[in-house]
Amino acid sequence: MRLVRKIREMQKVSDQLKQEGKRIGFVPTMGYLHDGHLSLVRKVKDLCDVVVVSIFVNPTQFGPGENFKRYPRDEEGDKAKLEGEAVDLLFIPEASDMYPSGYQTYVDVTEVSKGLCGDFRPGHFRGVATVVAKLFNIVKPDVAIFGEKDYQQLLVIKRMVEDLNFDIKIIPGVLIREEDGMAMSSRNTYLSPEERKRALILYRSLLKGKDLFQSGERKASILLKAVRESIKSMDGVTLQYVEIRDVETLEKIKNVDKPAVIALAAIVGSVRLIDNIIIGRSE
Amino acid sequence: MRLVRKIREMQKVSDQLKQEGKRIGFVPTMGYLHDGHLSLVRKVKDLCDVVVVSIFVNPTQFGPGENFKRYPRDEEGDKAKLEGEAVDLLFIPEASDMYPSGYQTYVDVTEVSKGLCGDFRPGHFRGVATVVAKLFNIVKPDVAIFGEKDYQQLLVIKRMVEDLNFDIKIIPGVLIREEDGMAMSSRNTYLSPEERKRALILYRSLLKGKDLFQSGERKASILLKAVRESIKSMDGVTLQYVEIRDVETLEKIKNVDKPAVIALAAIVGSVRLIDNIIIGRSE
Repeated sequence: MRLVRKIREMQKVSDQLKQEGKRIGFVPTMGYLHDGHLSLVRKVKDLCDVVVVSIFVNPTQFGPGENFKRYPRDEEGDKAKLEGEAVDLLFIPEASDMYPSGYQTYVDVTEVSKGLCGDFRPGHFRGVATVVAKLFNIVKPDVAIFGEKDYQQLLVIKRMVEDLNFDIKIIPGVLIREEDGMAMSSRNTYLSPEERKRALILYRSLLKGKDLFQSGERKASILLKAVRESIKSMDGVTLQYVEIRDVETLEKIKNVDKPAVIALAAIVGSVRLIDNIIIGRSE
Repeated sequence: MRLVRKIREMQKVSDQLKQEGKRIGFVPTMGYLHDGHLSLVRKVKDLCDVVVVSIFVNPTQFGPGENFKRYPRDEEGDKAKLEGEAVDLLFIPEASDMYPSGYQTYVDVTEVSKGLCGDFRPGHFRGVATVVAKLFNIVKPDVAIFGEKDYQQLLVIKRMVEDLNFDIKIIPGVLIREEDGMAMSSRNTYLSPEERKRALILYRSLLKGKDLFQSGERKASILLKAVRESIKSMDGVTLQYVEIRDVETLEKIKNVDKPAVIALAAIVGSVRLIDNIIIGRSE
């Protein structure tokens, strides 16, 4: 696996690969990799000739008080995991190269960024869209993959790619869970064992919503009430939102007569967690 | 000259050219071409293997009341001029393909877009940056050229390219004037013969500023006063702004001890015109 830290070098390597007719697959990450990330690597590997993974903890997608500096990092561990997946290229840029003095350009995806996490993390999706646009121009992939765990992010990126005519195919990766059902996240490392147990209520509550849907209920308000009350029953877990949205457009829906995502965010201890489940979609 | 109207087709043509190792030069325009545009075509032709010109009157860079619909168009005349320059590819997209239903992504270059025309045309540079980002992703050029006539636009694009890591070299093209000194612009066609005569005061006033600089004056306030008073002497010409800014950063300067641009906008009749002159730069 070749490690690249410089932007110009990455662009030149990608140009060379394209000249050779190679298809580049790209997995952007913030590192501290888990099986969720590795599942994205495996999926994109099947679609391309060369896999590029980036690790960059992007400061502009963290709000004030969101503790960018505390975000977990483990470069050596990440490298070993990616070697294990036979990744071709690892791109780890410096923040000072990505955002040099005088930096002032931002990409806004105005509608899909609203609501859900957008309401609780102002500026977050602007930071995400901007850094992904930059990474696309640096890595020049043919295909890029984003996990459905960050469902709103996936749709922000898809919309940006379509709107700005990036010639890149965006592939979704299914949400990967621990054996007990907890959605995999680098942030889970912040949870104490006690909090980790309480946090299981998130997935269990989403499952209650899905069960109710599968037993025939179609009213979003009733499905949401079931999820909300289930989460409320657990001490130490504070729900930020739970909503049902169209899987394609993220528009609010009242009756689930097409595939939808039940998405939520909650605070457990001092840790903000997100999770979601898709209903009405053939798996 | 091959005419392409579809976005996907343009991307495929560019991919093919790149596979063949061709360097693509790009001249984005809004059409109604004059010798200023053609000078850009000639300059970029020397640097590339293939020249692509686009014609797109971009609705999102016109403000309310700026009369997007009235902007002059002459597709057949433009084609003839570009054939005369042996342009390889002409890209004329449809507005409905560039901004389909649900479109919602915008690129903001926050600082360079402020002041000068940015104060008088809110949203203009957002529209410009966005459409140019789109065109870059469609045409995939190695080099693109922008005229110094739209000086602030040139710097907005340069900053965007640097910030978003577009792997494209941006070349400036010098401002081209009519024989009498009037800066070439598609908008000049709006002027009555009487207004056209009055409008000459803009260049003459800029020259007064430059003469004063060349005779040793370095204080921006004194240079600006000379330009302002010269323009005031002409009836029927209303100055919007005249400013002296750093040629590289567009920062305001008080003493011209490095290359600077004297930039102005004025209303003549009902037509908004811009012009500028560079001082302290070896030509």
